[in-house]
Amino acid sequence: MRLLLIHSDFIEYEAKKKTKIAEDPCSPSGRLEEALVAFCAVESPDADGIDDVVNQTVAAISEMAGKVECNRVMVYPYAHLSSDLAAPDLAVAALKSIEEALDKAGHEVKRAPFGWYKSFSLSCKGHPLSELSRSITPSEDAVKPEKKHIEH
Amino acid sequence: MRLLLIHSDFIEYEAKKKTKIAEDPCSPSGRLEEALVAFCAVESPDADGIDDVVNQTVAAISEMAGKVECNRVMVYPYAHLSSDLAAPDLAVAALKSIEEALDKAGHEVKRAPFGWYKSFSLSCKGHPLSELSRSITPSEDAVKPEKKHIEH
Ligand SMILES: [Mg+2]
Repeated sequence: MRLLLIHSDFIEYEAKKKTKIAEDPCSPSGRLEEALVAFCAVESPDADGIDDVVNQTVAAISEMAGKVECNRVMVYPYAHLSSDLAAPDLAVAALKSIEEALDKAGHEVKRAPFGWYKSFSLSCKGHPLSELSRSITPSEDAVKPEKKHIEH
Repeated sequence: MRLLLIHSDFIEYEAKKKTKIAEDPCSPSGRLEEALVAFCAVESPDADGIDDVVNQTVAAISEMAGKVECNRVMVYPYAHLSSDLAAPDLAVAALKSIEEALDKAGHEVKRAPFGWYKSFSLSCKGHPLSELSRSITPSEDAVKPEKKHIEH
């Protein structure tokens, strides 16, 4: 998972045109003010431990939300962050899980639709903590949980 | 080089705070309307053939500019696109070369400063050609120009 977090004055989007892999139904437009935008690109290696990747992603988002004292999150699929993308259905499922987990954790969450050409506008605050990027991969034990390797 | 090209209604930025590697002097703020934003992250492998990487980047930008019929370009350093960044001085030199080559090719070009925390606002048009990402690496011959390997 390639993750880019941007602390924004506002983020808004509008779904313009479907691609072959468009998520439907979806929320065709959305706007959040004073929000953390989580641009996400789910990657093929994530398939080896998708739940773990989702948990790590949620943790990274919540951690930054806490630091910048911002409770609102826009989960925004952004395939352009990676050149090794996961299959669309895995990606959509992961993005929905991230949205759900953030909601359960008490964040106000919106999620832009996967697989649509979308116009968007964004204003990044620009303070030293306002932008963060991270590469997240399934952690060791998540990948081979059954073949636990105990080193003495 | 990780490159993200976005066809925008407008892009504006304002330099807020220096990092240790801030470019100075610089243009502290800028705005372009109807412009192609070229988010660039110069990477460490680019050092093996930086001129070739610059040429490929300029070619990719000019090609998209032609397709979306947009002559204005904002060269915007964006380290968050990569987790394998080149040394700052190499990156700044490459970004300046890209700016210069685009200018010479007749584009109206601005360049946001390297190594500053910057606020920015952007509006992506969202038509099917409005976003493009690419990984650019030094091409074979650029890397080992003297040890030409001729295969029969
Ligand atoms: Mg809720």
